[in-house]
Amino acid sequence: MKFTVNRSAFLKKLKDVQLAVSSRSTIPILTGIKLIASEDGLQLTGSNSDISIETFVRKSDEQSGLTIEEEGQIVLQPARFFSDIVNKLPDETFTVEVKDRVQTAITSASSSFIINGLDAANYPHLPEIDTTQSFTLPVNLLKKIIKQTVIAVSTHESRPILTGIHLTINDGKLKAVATDSHRLSQRVIPVEGTESLSYNLVIPGKSLQELTRLLDDSLDEIEVAIAENQILFKTEDTLFYSRLLEGNYPDTDRLIPDSSATEVTLEAQILLGAVERASLLSHEGKNNVVKLSVKDDTVEITGNSPEVGRVNEQVTTQSISGEEMEISFNPDYLKAALTTFGPVDITLKLISTLRPFVLVPSEDKNEFIQLITPIRTST
Amino acid sequence: MKFTVNRSAFLKKLKDVQLAVSSRSTIPILTGIKLIASEDGLQLTGSNSDISIETFVRKSDEQSGLTIEEEGQIVLQPARFFSDIVNKLPDETFTVEVKDRVQTAITSASSSFIINGLDAANYPHLPEIDTTQSFTLPVNLLKKIIKQTVIAVSTHESRPILTGIHLTINDGKLKAVATDSHRLSQRVIPVEGTESLSYNLVIPGKSLQELTRLLDDSLDEIEVAIAENQILFKTEDTLFYSRLLEGNYPDTDRLIPDSSATEVTLEAQILLGAVERASLLSHEGKNNVVKLSVKDDTVEITGNSPEVGRVNEQVTTQSISGEEMEISFNPDYLKAALTTFGPVDITLKLISTLRPFVLVPSEDKNEFIQLITPIRTST
Repeated sequence: MKFTVNRSAFLKKLKDVQLAVSSRSTIPILTGIKLIASEDGLQLTGSNSDISIETFVRKSDEQSGLTIEEEGQIVLQPARFFSDIVNKLPDETFTVEVKDRVQTAITSASSSFIINGLDAANYPHLPEIDTTQSFTLPVNLLKKIIKQTVIAVSTHESRPILTGIHLTINDGKLKAVATDSHRLSQRVIPVEGTESLSYNLVIPGKSLQELTRLLDDSLDEIEVAIAENQILFKTEDTLFYSRLLEGNYPDTDRLIPDSSATEVTLEAQILLGAVERASLLSHEGKNNVVKLSVKDDTVEITGNSPEVGRVNEQVTTQSISGEEMEISFNPDYLKAALTTFGPVDITLKLISTLRPFVLVPSEDKNEFIQLITPIRTST
Repeated sequence: MKFTVNRSAFLKKLKDVQLAVSSRSTIPILTGIKLIASEDGLQLTGSNSDISIETFVRKSDEQSGLTIEEEGQIVLQPARFFSDIVNKLPDETFTVEVKDRVQTAITSASSSFIINGLDAANYPHLPEIDTTQSFTLPVNLLKKIIKQTVIAVSTHESRPILTGIHLTINDGKLKAVATDSHRLSQRVIPVEGTESLSYNLVIPGKSLQELTRLLDDSLDEIEVAIAENQILFKTEDTLFYSRLLEGNYPDTDRLIPDSSATEVTLEAQILLGAVERASLLSHEGKNNVVKLSVKDDTVEITGNSPEVGRVNEQVTTQSISGEEMEISFNPDYLKAALTTFGPVDITLKLISTLRPFVLVPSEDKNEFIQLITPIRTST
């Protein structure tokens, strides 16, 4: 194998596949990047046990400056080492040449490396996914759905299914739900072209976070195809595979309350500022709890950590209706939830001191919901 | 004590004194910031066992928006917690009021904190330093001297004296030297107004690094005053104290060679690029060593780590004179040394394979020198 390529064009693609590579893989060959030089261009692959990314540098793309002098394949590792070398090379272009079986020369102007590669024949095969039943999603919408739900994904492995986002497609609608059993986030959107499809799957939250890193905002649409235990996201030159989590996701619909005793409408950013400040105190103290009180037509956030001090935040609202209410909770959950709304008005719906409360956008109440379970306090 | 102040003006000063505060101090009161409100303004103090920083917000400075409603003093802690609160407060100004002995209210618009302060009477006194024998230094020169020498300061506590920078003032010249016994950096400059002074002191390298963080590039001059075991750096509103290290600094003059067998002149940045690349390989391998060879009028940097691979860098030079030479060393020492020169031509002076080699700027050879001890290798 021998090819010469523009360094910055190559680095951009290399950065993409590196997202899938872990330096601590238990399968040594997966710490590397697989390169395949063929007639049309150069394929780069990175993978770990959860996700795999495959991308392509086209010979026909002039900016790539790619010339293939000899077809072939090699795995260079560790990926970080290889990319550091390419990053630091002195010239605009560089050449990779497999010399003696796996000994690979990397040269650029006055600089020349020989590094020990691995036989690409031993690199695991990526899953094959039938794309005939695929559908497409706008990239910015997909990224938003992930950002809005991934905050509620569990980081504990005690219930592995909760480390994923539950995705269902039915009746032309896509529903994404995540919960770590203390809070829940749900987004529902209609998706064109899915009217005849029906899916029920759980995608690891980490995979989806890597996917949002991969997806450039300049991209318009992404193609999605689903197989038994894998999902594929596909853009023009790049394929992103993730394994799916096995098992049944709990029924979360029954958790979402359909009534409320108290409703408060306010700007998400104003409540966020108050909770952020209150959490400074609760983080410093022993119990990470703050209290929200609705009383006499005012909303207050308070915190009390005897060893540190007290905080009181008066929150400006647009409207308050229903009963007086006091509810205590982990302020970090409310902060994360509020961050996903952006600068819009939201409605807080409360049932009682010990029942979960929800936040919805004041417009599109049915499309997006954040739910938070209160903490029982002695005071 | 009660004062109201502009939040961003206060935060700028608070950030300065925070440089001296460690969250892990064994003296609890030192994890806080001392505030003293007096007729003229507000004094802020932060300190750890090595350095103390004292700064002043003047009432006469209009941008400070400072009003002193009641004089007094308090220690608020931990410093990080206090600054996080001020940072997040909603309004442009905020008010601090000591309510009940040490209970302190911090209020800003709709936000109100009560935090437990500490009695400022228990805060350690800062040293008193006679400033009649002080001298001044240009701030950018002081920062440059520190940057150029601090790289060679030892980070090991086995020989505490080597964790400092050795500063001597004699005959109107200031000499700064640091060595960790593997490398040495020395800078000499004439300083006006020191002709009658004679000092010999060792300042902790860490203190001087904090000082460079404190010193804004907009400052012109800094006043320096020295006492038995303390040094004071003083700008208009800010005092920076550092303790001095006790003990005798080793005689380093004898380490600097006065002859050479081989001399190479080249651009510092070109050599830096080559060594940076070569070090990628040596870091990946077991031994962090590269070799510099002067031979047949060329300079080469090479590295060989059998388990990883090999690297060869041809280095463009301006002139080579003297004998052929091969010398092996830790590339990180050469990288750090080259970084301190900036984009200038330097001269490498080599004596033999096992003797330390030096780097000097091709101009001003006597003002600045970096010395590196080679590594004995079996090959």
